[in-house]
Amino acid sequence: MSDLTHFDSSGASRMVDVGAKQVTRRLARASGRVRMSAGTLALIRDKKAAKGDVLEVARLAGIMAAKRTADLIPLCHPLPLESATIDFEFLDDTTLRIEAVAQIEAKTGVEMEALTAVSVAALTVYDMCKGVDRGMTIERIQLEEKSGGRSGHWRRDSASNSADMKTRSEKGSS
Amino acid sequence: MSDLTHFDSSGASRMVDVGAKQVTRRLARASGRVRMSAGTLALIRDKKAAKGDVLEVARLAGIMAAKRTADLIPLCHPLPLESATIDFEFLDDTTLRIEAVAQIEAKTGVEMEALTAVSVAALTVYDMCKGVDRGMTIERIQLEEKSGGRSGHWRRDSASNSADMKTRSEKGSS
Amino acid sequence: MSDLTHFDSSGASRMVDVGAKQVTRRLARASGRVRMSAGTLALIRDKKAAKGDVLEVARLAGIMAAKRTADLIPLCHPLPLESATIDFEFLDDTTLRIEAVAQIEAKTGVEMEALTAVSVAALTVYDMCKGVDRGMTIERIQLEEKSGGRSGHWRRDSASNSADMKTRSEKGSS
Amino acid sequence: MSDLTHFDSSGASRMVDVGAKQVTRRLARASGRVRMSAGTLALIRDKKAAKGDVLEVARLAGIMAAKRTADLIPLCHPLPLESATIDFEFLDDTTLRIEAVAQIEAKTGVEMEALTAVSVAALTVYDMCKGVDRGMTIERIQLEEKSGGRSGHWRRDSASNSADMKTRSEKGSS
Amino acid sequence: MSDLTHFDSSGASRMVDVGAKQVTRRLARASGRVRMSAGTLALIRDKKAAKGDVLEVARLAGIMAAKRTADLIPLCHPLPLESATIDFEFLDDTTLRIEAVAQIEAKTGVEMEALTAVSVAALTVYDMCKGVDRGMTIERIQLEEKSGGRSGHWRRDSASNSADMKTRSEKGSS
Amino acid sequence: MSDLTHFDSSGASRMVDVGAKQVTRRLARASGRVRMSAGTLALIRDKKAAKGDVLEVARLAGIMAAKRTADLIPLCHPLPLESATIDFEFLDDTTLRIEAVAQIEAKTGVEMEALTAVSVAALTVYDMCKGVDRGMTIERIQLEEKSGGRSGHWRRDSASNSADMKTRSEKGSS
Repeated sequence: MSDLTHFDSSGASRMVDVGAKQVTRRLARASGRVRMSAGTLALIRDKKAAKGDVLEVARLAGIMAAKRTADLIPLCHPLPLESATIDFEFLDDTTLRIEAVAQIEAKTGVEMEALTAVSVAALTVYDMCKGVDRGMTIERIQLEEKSGGRSGHWRRDSASNSADMKTRSEKGSS
Repeated sequence: MSDLTHFDSSGASRMVDVGAKQVTRRLARASGRVRMSAGTLALIRDKKAAKGDVLEVARLAGIMAAKRTADLIPLCHPLPLESATIDFEFLDDTTLRIEAVAQIEAKTGVEMEALTAVSVAALTVYDMCKGVDRGMTIERIQLEEKSGGRSGHWRRDSASNSADMKTRSEKGSS
Repeated sequence: MSDLTHFDSSGASRMVDVGAKQVTRRLARASGRVRMSAGTLALIRDKKAAKGDVLEVARLAGIMAAKRTADLIPLCHPLPLESATIDFEFLDDTTLRIEAVAQIEAKTGVEMEALTAVSVAALTVYDMCKGVDRGMTIERIQLEEKSGGRSGHWRRDSASNSADMKTRSEKGSS
Repeated sequence: MSDLTHFDSSGASRMVDVGAKQVTRRLARASGRVRMSAGTLALIRDKKAAKGDVLEVARLAGIMAAKRTADLIPLCHPLPLESATIDFEFLDDTTLRIEAVAQIEAKTGVEMEALTAVSVAALTVYDMCKGVDRGMTIERIQLEEKSGGRSGHWRRDSASNSADMKTRSEKGSS
Repeated sequence: MSDLTHFDSSGASRMVDVGAKQVTRRLARASGRVRMSAGTLALIRDKKAAKGDVLEVARLAGIMAAKRTADLIPLCHPLPLESATIDFEFLDDTTLRIEAVAQIEAKTGVEMEALTAVSVAALTVYDMCKGVDRGMTIERIQLEEKSGGRSGHWRRDSASNSADMKTRSEKGSS
Repeated sequence: MSDLTHFDSSGASRMVDVGAKQVTRRLARASGRVRMSAGTLALIRDKKAAKGDVLEVARLAGIMAAKRTADLIPLCHPLPLESATIDFEFLDDTTLRIEAVAQIEAKTGVEMEALTAVSVAALTVYDMCKGVDRGMTIERIQLEEKSGGRSGHWRRDSASNSADMKTRSEKGSS
């Protein structure tokens, strides 16, 4: 239970055998944030209305990356993803929130697909805006929810989240 | 200057023409963090000594991803990367720091390569450990330094960094 | 019905959820043409007999591209293709016809796989022969037939095709 | 001169040695068309104004495919592309024109990159709209212009183009 | 039976239709060897204990390559691999043995995945050590066992193996 | 000199910095063998004349794989290959020899490209013929020659080769 299953008993890495696992409907939801200057965020928001949509480029990059997750993460199982969506929200005048949902009916989950989608979408926002704001940071990429499979439904606990944030603020870091 | 160069004047996305830029030696250094439970971090640290090295898997994933950056980031220029390294450091008992350096002699920089290396290394750490710690978060992925090209040497300012951290702690978030 | 399903109600692109769709046997057949000088076509036809088979190279390129369709088409579902074939026919002394058939048992169809196979096969013919005939054109890439799934069997209607050709010749364009 | 250089004297395919060629600035411009119903074209044009931009998705797909041309076309040289742009134009109420320009300073040209960009952009338009207009066709993908290298500047001749169209209409085909 | 099924009756290559085949649990085991100087082998063995694990890099390369087999082998079916492991053994002071096992529940087998894993792992060992031992050779890559599917269980016969080796030594070649 | 340069002093893997190396013309030649039954070899040889050319498929697979070497070998530098050729020879009635030559003008060599081309060509021969001869083996994949770069011209020594073979036959293994 407390083991890293991607290693066998001798410490060799491996792609875990999921052959005996049950095919169930699986969903994973992940999120992340991009922190930037207020000017950059305004540029993204205005561009969206006017000309040049940073978020649409980031969205496509995230979705395409989700499909290639197993090419990127060495021991991740290749899966024919059945659904991928990405949403954006401006949390405040310097913070963009990214949320991705991945779904499939398979023997193993799609957490990595959702997290990869968020990460690559965030990197793409950085790439599009780095000419004006090199100091942007990508923050708090995390799994929000997962369902399907033996472990059942998991949801990042609001309570533990607060606790987590307290711990973090105590540490004075993210 | 304050423009998003990845769009033309009509708002169409494009891969910017770097044909007229000078070939110079370019370096980019980026970093990020993975926050986890103390138990997970101990598992990583112990495995390193004993059997199953999470960080070596993450390192290779990051380096390989750096080489494929232009496949992932839609408007990023493909570049034959000349050097890529990734280092890990345990900042405290729940925080792993990842730093990547990418180098090339080319017409355009390798910031995205360094940031992609960090991101995919972090995602791989998550993948390897998610069985024991689903709540892990990836934090503060950021460019630390870049040199080469017309814009010269840029370094994340310690001063502004502190300010940034203050702002962030005021906001109670990362 | 008249909606572009690759966008949600807010206009955001997405990979449509096919999770609830039925697994059925699906087939798609697509075709296209390469127009070239009579000399180039003779070269291809002769090479086939003698030394250097342009069509075999194009065929493999098309089949390999079919397998990577979801890497190329942003919102296309990744699918483990079960069959792919490509056939060539010389329609007249300046026209090569390419036809591809893709098959799978899956929740969504393989039209894009068949069309991608034809397109990349045609591009490969161009690449192989561009040294002798830079003016070659790729024409009329189109779906010919599809079966499986809720929409059932679809076949490009001969009648509507003729109408289409009339319209086109009236317009004096291809 | 009349030889297919992708084959050696025994008929074996090969990636031609460009080692001795001169590094020059190279440009290639290619175009293609997507024929569709007037309703579909209106949907694309309206969506652009309102919500869901088919052309922006197609543009990104085309640019990303240009970067991966050598992965798709078997004997094509891999090149670190320096610039890629794609433009769209509605020629009439049923015809979308796509034009791509690729540039690089290298030993070999980027015709295949420009043609691949057009082809994959066209395929993506098909994918996005196939739910409402399965009969769409991709037409007249062709090189428009190329410069750089020993063969110098080449431009699709307007005159020969007209002749070409006459021949085609005489043949009653596209 | 004595036919090469990857060609149709006209000699055209194709991706064979496996649509009608039964989904069964399939396993393939393959092996190969890397011959090197005793000094190189000692370096690998020592590095493993001390710093820098050649075999772990090779293992990951092999597993990742197994997932991309259908990208490499033109007519191989793409399959969402369910398990991949690689083991190493030092046969004597100049011989490293590599063994890979691939598993899936699918309509077609995973021999190519196992063989590709072994090949790329071996190539990676070469790459890591070529600076000190350019003369290393990769030997005897072969299928050891396969199960599942219509052809049932196949195992490389020890007897025929010996015969094979005798034949080979008679021929004085590997 | 006796160091594995792909590891730093702490044992961490890395993509070695080749930034300071000189750009020179580089060539690598590698070879390998496929051992098969006489019947299979005849099938390949006959198919070549009649219908279905195993070797042409293998050749293309090898050339395409050479272009993607850096995607497969974790610490290998990405390089825009300038030339790749593959030749086949029937050594006797059960042995096919494969030889690949890769060339580039770059800061680092293309040994891995040549070796990867040979390996994937050999795997493809196996894939095409495995239906009739599952016991085929891939033998003696090795670098034959390399030139360019600081280390100059290297050629597999005939003498040392013989010695090598003697050692091997003494050991009674391939």
